[in-house]
This record gives sequence, C-alpha cells and structure tokens, in this order.
Amino acid sequence: MDHFTYKNDELYCENIPVSKITAEVGTPAYIYSAATFRRHVQNYREAFAEMNPLICYSVKGCSNINILKMVADLDTGFDVVSGGELFRVAKAGGDTTKVVYAGVGKTDKEINEAIDANIAYFNVESEAELANLTKIANERKTIVKGALRVNPDVDPKTHRYTTTGKKESKFGVDIERAVAAFQEFGKDEYFKLCAIHLHLGSPINTTDPYVLAIDKALVMIEELRAQGFEIEAIDIGGGFGADYTTGQAPLTADYADVIIPMLRDKGLKLILEPGRSISGNAGIMVGQVVYVKKGGDKNFAILDAGMNDLIRPSLYEAFHFAWPVKVKPQHSLDKRMDPMNLSDLVKTDIVGPICETGDYLALDRNLPAIARGDQLAIFTAGAYGFAMSSQYNSHPRAAEVLVDGDSFKVIRQRESYDDLIAAEMS
Amino acid sequence: MDHFTYKNDELYCENIPVSKITAEVGTPAYIYSAATFRRHVQNYREAFAEMNPLICYSVKGCSNINILKMVADLDTGFDVVSGGELFRVAKAGGDTTKVVYAGVGKTDKEINEAIDANIAYFNVESEAELANLTKIANERKTIVKGALRVNPDVDPKTHRYTTTGKKESKFGVDIERAVAAFQEFGKDEYFKLCAIHLHLGSPINTTDPYVLAIDKALVMIEELRAQGFEIEAIDIGGGFGADYTTGQAPLTADYADVIIPMLRDKGLKLILEPGRSISGNAGIMVGQVVYVKKGGDKNFAILDAGMNDLIRPSLYEAFHFAWPVKVKPQHSLDKRMDPMNLSDLVKTDIVGPICETGDYLALDRNLPAIARGDQLAIFTAGAYGFAMSSQYNSHPRAAEVLVDGDSFKVIRQRESYDDLIAAEMS
Repeated sequence: MDHFTYKNDELYCENIPVSKITAEVGTPAYIYSAATFRRHVQNYREAFAEMNPLICYSVKGCSNINILKMVADLDTGFDVVSGGELFRVAKAGGDTTKVVYAGVGKTDKEINEAIDANIAYFNVESEAELANLTKIANERKTIVKGALRVNPDVDPKTHRYTTTGKKESKFGVDIERAVAAFQEFGKDEYFKLCAIHLHLGSPINTTDPYVLAIDKALVMIEELRAQGFEIEAIDIGGGFGADYTTGQAPLTADYADVIIPMLRDKGLKLILEPGRSISGNAGIMVGQVVYVKKGGDKNFAILDAGMNDLIRPSLYEAFHFAWPVKVKPQHSLDKRMDPMNLSDLVKTDIVGPICETGDYLALDRNLPAIARGDQLAIFTAGAYGFAMSSQYNSHPRAAEVLVDGDSFKVIRQRESYDDLIAAEMS
Repeated sequence: MDHFTYKNDELYCENIPVSKITAEVGTPAYIYSAATFRRHVQNYREAFAEMNPLICYSVKGCSNINILKMVADLDTGFDVVSGGELFRVAKAGGDTTKVVYAGVGKTDKEINEAIDANIAYFNVESEAELANLTKIANERKTIVKGALRVNPDVDPKTHRYTTTGKKESKFGVDIERAVAAFQEFGKDEYFKLCAIHLHLGSPINTTDPYVLAIDKALVMIEELRAQGFEIEAIDIGGGFGADYTTGQAPLTADYADVIIPMLRDKGLKLILEPGRSISGNAGIMVGQVVYVKKGGDKNFAILDAGMNDLIRPSLYEAFHFAWPVKVKPQHSLDKRMDPMNLSDLVKTDIVGPICETGDYLALDRNLPAIARGDQLAIFTAGAYGFAMSSQYNSHPRAAEVLVDGDSFKVIRQRESYDDLIAAEMS
C-alpha cells in the first residue's frame, strides 16, 4: 500500500495534489511519499519482529540523502554497494555500524573508508576479495567482520540482468567453494569471516526461491559449525517484490511466514536488505506531454521525461503503470492494472524526448485521450528511478520532491544547463 | 583509422602512453584523440567536397564542451537534440547559425532559445510541432526555417532501439503524410518549411539504406516542387558506421560514392549529421582490474568501470573491443577483432562493480591472462560513452582527457563524493 491516490479526479501524494507540486517545481519531477517509506519499513519491523532483525535499507534503489535521513530516523541499518553510498549514509547521519557493504569491485580506498566507518559486515564476493580484506585488516591490525556471499544456484525467475544468485554470475562464491574459502580465510586474527550472505536477484515475486536458498545455506552453516567455524549471522539479502501492478508482489508478511520458521532457534542474527519493496511504490515520476502524434498506426504521447530520467523500461523492458495526473470522473482509478474495461480509452505509447526508439516509458497502454500539456504519472518509480538517471542528450536531471502529510519540499534541485558543463570548464 | 596504437608493448593515444595518463588521472577515464576527431571531420570534408555540404557534428554522441570547441574550430555546424546541447554549442563558441535541431519533444522554452540563437533549421518531427513552430514564429514575427523529417520506412538493419526511420517509430512524419503536411504548413509567412530531413538510425554499416531513403525523398521533393513548394536543402542525417571491429564500417568515401551521384545537380544544399563515425573511434574508456575471480566455469575480470560509465553493452548488447593497456610482445595487436589465433589467451568476462548481472563491458573474450591492477582499454567508446553515463550505485562519474600530439589535458574533472549530493543539500 502506498499514499498515491486519486481524489476529486486528480492524483494526490498524501494530502497534496500532484499538480500543485508540479506547478511549483516543474516537470520532469520525482515525487516521494514519506508516509509510504515509513509504512514499508514498519511492515518489515512487524512481520519479522520475532527475529529482531537488522533491517538494512538498500541504498542503491533510492539514495537521496534526505530519504536516507528519514529512513535512518526509523533506526534502520543500510545496505551499501560503494564508497559513494557509504558517504551518503554517513552524511545523512545514519549509523554506519549498522551498514553491510556488498559489491564485487570494492577498491582498497573504499575498503579503508568502510573500516574507518566501523561498518557491521563486508559481504564478500570472491576469494580475491577475501585475501585482500585479510591483508588490509592485518596491516591495520583492526578487527573487520565479513559475511561470505554464497551463490545458492537458485533461479529467482526475474530479468536476466537482475538475477544474481546463479552459479555463472559474477557475484559471490559458488556454494561448493564456500567451505574451502572458510578453511583458507576463516581463522584469521583480524579478519573475522563469521556470517553468510545470500542475494538472489530482484524483484522476486514468489517466496520459493528464498526457501530453497536458505535451506541450502543452513546445510552449509551446519557443516561449517561442525568444522569449528563460528557463524553468528545470516544476511538473506533483498529482492522482495513491489507492486508494479496491484497485487503483483507477496506481502512482507508472506515472506516472513516462510522465512522465520526456517531460521528460528538457529542461533543466527537475521539481516534483511529490502530496497525496492520499500522505495518502489514510495515514488512516482511525473512528466508533461509536449506533443501528441501518430506514427504509422501508433499513437504517441511525447513527454518531457524519458529514458534519461527513468531507464528501467528501456533497459529491462520493465512495466511501470502510467496514468494522467488529472482525469475525468470515469477514469479515476483505485487499482494499477490495465483498465481495459473503462470507456473512452486510446491505445498509446508514452515516449520521451531522447533521440532513440528505445526511449519509451510505456508501450501500447489503454489511456484516456491525451492532450498537449497533460501530465502523466509513472508509478512505482521510487526504486531504480532517479538513481539510474543520466544527462543523456544533455537534459539536466529532474527535481526530487518529498511529501510529508500536508507539506512538501524539494530534496534535489532541478539541474541547470550550467550544471551540465561545470566540470568541463578549465 | 584512429590514433590509438600499440607501441613498445603498450597502448598509446597519439604520442602519449595511456598508462602515463591514468597514472596521473586515475581510472575509470575516457581518453580522446584530437587528431582522430580532426581526421574524421576531414574525411567528410574531402569525400563530400563536390557538394560543399554543411557538416553538422552530432553533439549527442560526445558532447564535452572542449570537444565541441575543437570541432567548431574545424568550421563545422552542429546537430543538436535539446536546449542543453544548443547551450553547449554556444558556450563552446560554435556558430549557432550552422545548427540543425532535431528531437521529438522540443519544448517552447527550447524552441525560443533556438530562435534566439538563429539556428539554421528545426528538423520537425510531427504535425503538432509544425503547428507549434508556426504559432511561435508568428507570435515573434521572426523567420524560422524548418526541415520536415520524413520516415522513408527503410530498415537500416541495426538495433531496434536505434532504428529511427521506420514507419511505426516516434520520429518524423510518414512519407505519405509529408505532402499533406506541406500543404497545411508550407506557405506560412514566418515559418518557412523549406527542407527535408531523413534519419534512419545508427549505426548503419551498409550504404543501401541511404540509397533507398534518398530515392524516396527525391520523388517526394519533385512532387512538392511541382506543387509550388520551395525545397532548398536535404539533410540526410547521420548514422554512418564506425569500426567497432576493424573493417566493420564502410569508409566515408564509400557513403559519398553512392550519395553524391543521387544529389548532384538537384538544386539542394546537402546537410550531413555525422556523430558516431567521428567520435566513436576518437575515444577509449580505461578501467583498472580490482579483482579476478571464477564463477561457475566463467572467468571474470572485475573493473572499477561499469555500466554506469558505459551502458552500451548492457543496453544494446553492443560489442566493444577490449584489450589490456600493457601487453606482452606476442599480444601487441594492430587489428581489433577476436585474436583467437594468439597463444596464452583465456576466455574472460569483463564486468563492472555495479550490483547487477547486466553490468558487463565484454563477454566471453579471448584475452591475455588478467591480473589485479592491470588496466583494460575499451575501444570505440568515444560515441555514446560518457554522454550516457550515470552515477548509478553512487559512483562519481569518470574523468575525461583530451590528447593532442605530445600533450594531454583533463577536459572533465573526475567527480567527487560531494558532487553526488551537492544538489540534495537544503
């Protein structure tokens, strides 16, 4: 559930009409709902309460520092994947001792920054990284904790680009090599390999892959303990789905219902890394229609927002529900799925201003007739939206806005032409 | 031909070892060769000399302001697709009266900026835009020239995302509607629709699509002239190929040899919009190996550069030749194609630090054995390389460097962590 709803024939974010925000801030704009972020974090807190888990908000999906501040205020940890993300967490006042740090390419500079910040665990992705962390921890004579990321070789049935737990992936260590890795690196004085990390991919819209993966991990943990290795925590990663269409993803409680019974009484601290399921439906992206046109038999609504602002449709052929910000009464929706039963709809492609055919936001959608000047909301844009945006075709990046109840504020200034070239002036 | 060559077992850009640049600037870095830019522009000048064309360098592929300055010094025009690109050209000291402006989503603000800059032609993409330009030109009582972009419905046999001249695309006006568009908008007092624009897609590695498209356009121009419309220019767009592998693309002269005979003595000013064929092989991207690892049966070289720096492999499954900056004598290459006949090669995936499986730069390549600390050059990265880069996973964007003979300079500063959040501080 989120706080983007149609009232009085227009879209609201919490108590504010979206049109009021865009009138002030312009388009394209990302608009986030604070109440939705809070509610989604609370869902994890409640569903997994029995395990008292460390909930590490995954920064990569939505990393604005003002969002991180709000999430930090909910006493979460953070899942980071770069020195830049750790920097964001620290600047936001997040507790860096509750940070887990994954990523296949951690540089020595980044590793040292993370040790300086006293993070909870490095999620270690390879034997080469184990060797490097051991070396650095010993040089610094500092206790550094690691969780070995293992590939359970489970197929999460998601896009091949965001499948990460299969055997041939660049991530983690194959489960057959994990015990050998502990034997080589698991008894160091300073580098403490004492946890297991799993991450299967994202989004995962069933609970089965988690069951299969945790099952394999528990067998391995038992074997490791039998060999004298202390395993204190299991990080089951993220990847929990979000409702790109209403009812698509399991509830947080559904995941908890299968995961908790497997991990209860195993003497393992549980770490979760939810990202998309928290931020996805907490944000929309709004663009304005510059022109409508026909091309062959197709109808196009051309927005001022495109793949530079939101690349998921182009890159993953991802579906984002799209609907006008202002509608006629008969088009006021309460569910986000193809409204084919409504009258007066026209099959339309929603495209952007970028000079390539791959620049689209939504294809072949049943939409109310669109006119120049209309604004369209692209839903579930809070995760991997602005975070993946670029200045392609020299478009300044969009503004970001955070709504909280009856008020809103700009949390990222719209870029200017001057911002495009500032670093190029010599 | 370009100026990236192996000498003394290492890669040079013109007279400078690439390793010397990265030692100073770090990695990831984009490195450009000024001589290559100049040579490629000169190729167009010479091959099309008989037509004395307006050569409009396509800004979107490589838009650094220092590159634009250098190109402007060669007395070129520019092909822009946004207000931001026009701003770049003006700031670079480019002659804005030699600018053509394409793009399906030109806003009123952008149109007014372009009229203020007295650009040569708007390449008009729809009837709605024709109406809008007519309205604005009349309100301003200013002569504004337009070229109607027509879709010749020719398949350029390139990636579906960068195919733009087919009938069902968002670009241009279908050729059957073009005459009607002239009849409606072609006799205005201020908005002068007086040219035809074609753009088929990119890259196009044969000359046939140009022949088919120009042939259709000439038939249409004849009909338009018979109806009393003055057509002064034909803009045949860009899309000319670049050698991603040695010998892949036709020479500039090959394109000219088929195009010139079709347009000779037609009373049409010729406009060309080369981009990729000028900038593509004028740039490389260099990353450093952070770790090497095995995953299943695969070997991975993990770089500090990824899809955030160069998204073409992920987005288009594009091939970029990749080879180490420093090599053993037997691995010093003079051609860029699979060197399967060399000894001591290992099948390797070159991947980046971003947390998704789609983050790769090259798959299943025969490479010399790679070690931590090695640097790899990704070739033909000058076009749609840095221009499409992002800060995904909160990675600061790369530095850009321009080499000119015996010297080089940083033409874009590497971003810092502070740059990531500057616009988010309130």
